[in-house]
Amino acid sequence: MLSDIQDVIKQIIPADDQSILKAEHRLNILTKPPGSLGQLEPLAVKLAGISGTEQPSFTKRRVVVMAADHGVCCEGVSAFPQEVTLQMAHNFLSGGAAVNVLARQAGAEVQFVDVGINGDLSHVDLIDRKVRRGTDNMAVGPAMSREDAMNALLVGIRVAQEAVKNGTEIFITGEMGIGNTTASAAILCALKGIAPEVTVGRGTGIDDERLLHKIAVVERALKVNQPNSADPLDVLSKVGGLEIAGLAGLILGAAANRTPIILDGFISGAAALVAKALAPESIAYMIASHVSGERGHKLMLEQLGLEPLLNLGLRLGEGTGGVLCLHLIEAICRILSEMATFESAGISGAGQR
Amino acid sequence: MLSDIQDVIKQIIPADDQSILKAEHRLNILTKPPGSLGQLEPLAVKLAGISGTEQPSFTKRRVVVMAADHGVCCEGVSAFPQEVTLQMAHNFLSGGAAVNVLARQAGAEVQFVDVGINGDLSHVDLIDRKVRRGTDNMAVGPAMSREDAMNALLVGIRVAQEAVKNGTEIFITGEMGIGNTTASAAILCALKGIAPEVTVGRGTGIDDERLLHKIAVVERALKVNQPNSADPLDVLSKVGGLEIAGLAGLILGAAANRTPIILDGFISGAAALVAKALAPESIAYMIASHVSGERGHKLMLEQLGLEPLLNLGLRLGEGTGGVLCLHLIEAICRILSEMATFESAGISGAGQR
Repeated sequence: MLSDIQDVIKQIIPADDQSILKAEHRLNILTKPPGSLGQLEPLAVKLAGISGTEQPSFTKRRVVVMAADHGVCCEGVSAFPQEVTLQMAHNFLSGGAAVNVLARQAGAEVQFVDVGINGDLSHVDLIDRKVRRGTDNMAVGPAMSREDAMNALLVGIRVAQEAVKNGTEIFITGEMGIGNTTASAAILCALKGIAPEVTVGRGTGIDDERLLHKIAVVERALKVNQPNSADPLDVLSKVGGLEIAGLAGLILGAAANRTPIILDGFISGAAALVAKALAPESIAYMIASHVSGERGHKLMLEQLGLEPLLNLGLRLGEGTGGVLCLHLIEAICRILSEMATFESAGISGAGQR
Repeated sequence: MLSDIQDVIKQIIPADDQSILKAEHRLNILTKPPGSLGQLEPLAVKLAGISGTEQPSFTKRRVVVMAADHGVCCEGVSAFPQEVTLQMAHNFLSGGAAVNVLARQAGAEVQFVDVGINGDLSHVDLIDRKVRRGTDNMAVGPAMSREDAMNALLVGIRVAQEAVKNGTEIFITGEMGIGNTTASAAILCALKGIAPEVTVGRGTGIDDERLLHKIAVVERALKVNQPNSADPLDVLSKVGGLEIAGLAGLILGAAANRTPIILDGFISGAAALVAKALAPESIAYMIASHVSGERGHKLMLEQLGLEPLLNLGLRLGEGTGGVLCLHLIEAICRILSEMATFESAGISGAGQR
């Protein structure tokens, strides 16, 4: 099992330098002042490097929503009861959740993967990869075994591999799991040695009192479990979540297949931290769609070394911010392919006055 | 002529309170934590108020690119020579400019209006409304007469009226005119009593030396012309531009027809300042798409009282940022129309733990 994971990690290679140079050149000969498309220009260059072509395009888009439950919910860390994970699963599968709506707009498929929902679910479109029925309460012991964490990671890797085989050209990370901002904050603390006061946020919208309680719960989880910051699988199993492990695997699988993966918000960011810790080169394949309203997300993106494209105060998760970012990605790809050059349009360049 | 403008201003009424309340309610019963769509939620409410329906949608989209030349170019304020306005006009009309590419992606039409290009232009798709061949050099006297400014304003009003008659449901402001960041900065200074040091930016990308020169040119224009801050038409004619006047008219015409208008960057913002000064209620119909990389734009948006949606360091103009914002507008409209409610999906709400 560990060797399967290690094999995938070995397949992750750096982005393509030649395509990066070609895309940079192309951006400078298009009929616009150099650099005038701001942050979209380095995005174009990154996408070129990932895909190995100076004019990339990503038609087949897939949001992978990984869902699981969290034992830590019994500590009262969320505004919503744990059953909502299962209830929302039905909503995703019938197309009524926010990410479904936004994915339809953006021409992306939504794949819903049960990695560990605490309940029974049956639907023709469900990808049932349940590793176990939710995690245990991390405030009193490890959330799961190291083996469970590796299994959940492998779920993500295989989902990525199958999707690429079926033509997926770009991924968006999505998630559902009541309690998962608690686990994500704990991962950020454990991997980077940061105090819970600056990583724990309001999640679905808890009040001041419950926020203090949530911070205390994460402190307790870190104290009880003593996760080893140098061992990402130890962190993932002790204070992580099954959907977070699944997303970390999805990221590794995407990177191994040279396929860009758009990160959504705070939970996706925790998965990205794990993926980066396991395979530093994988960061070259990740795109940060937005910085969310969740406290700790800005810091998390800084730790990842990624610059977000959007800053809309979103805090819904599900992959919603990631899907919104698809429009910007399509925009810059079209710019690379469709815009006239100074030469083709017969236009005087800068400084020719 | 003045009475034509005043008639349009009288038609601008406040947004619809009932639709605002209904949209606010709807956002709170959808299957998501309240407020979790961040800035997109007040956007939804604003669009509902403008259109008078709790589930707005804007299918027929039009970017109006107003183009004109600026006499102040002879002072050497731009990185590009004045001929580029005419050369770029051909590029817009043949579909090769950035805004054409992004408009195709967003399902928007591009309408190119010559309000005052200093050259001859002929194309089947050109809307020829040339008021005069560019402005005069504002650094030595008024850019144009008050009558010219009113004529250019009326061009915009009529373009808006015709477009609405032909089914346009949402406008995006676009522009082309070498030298127009100079005029826009001067308008911001003149209307708001702000010093050129904080309003004048690098435009298409001038160096430090030329930036200092550009600031001095705006200082001179303000000193020579003494525009009256209480008289928007005086400001517009003395230190403005023909395409800026056209866009101010477009905004007034859109607002009078209860049609939302998305503002692009710095030049569009200068037009918006003029429109707001002429008709304070018109601000309710404007949406700020982005804050650009141009120094002074953030301050300009603060003066308008508008919060931008994107912050990507764009500084290309043409309407590009405005068109990118269409995707966010469509996104939140679809959310209002397509998402499940807690009741319809049978999901427990917050606090029901």
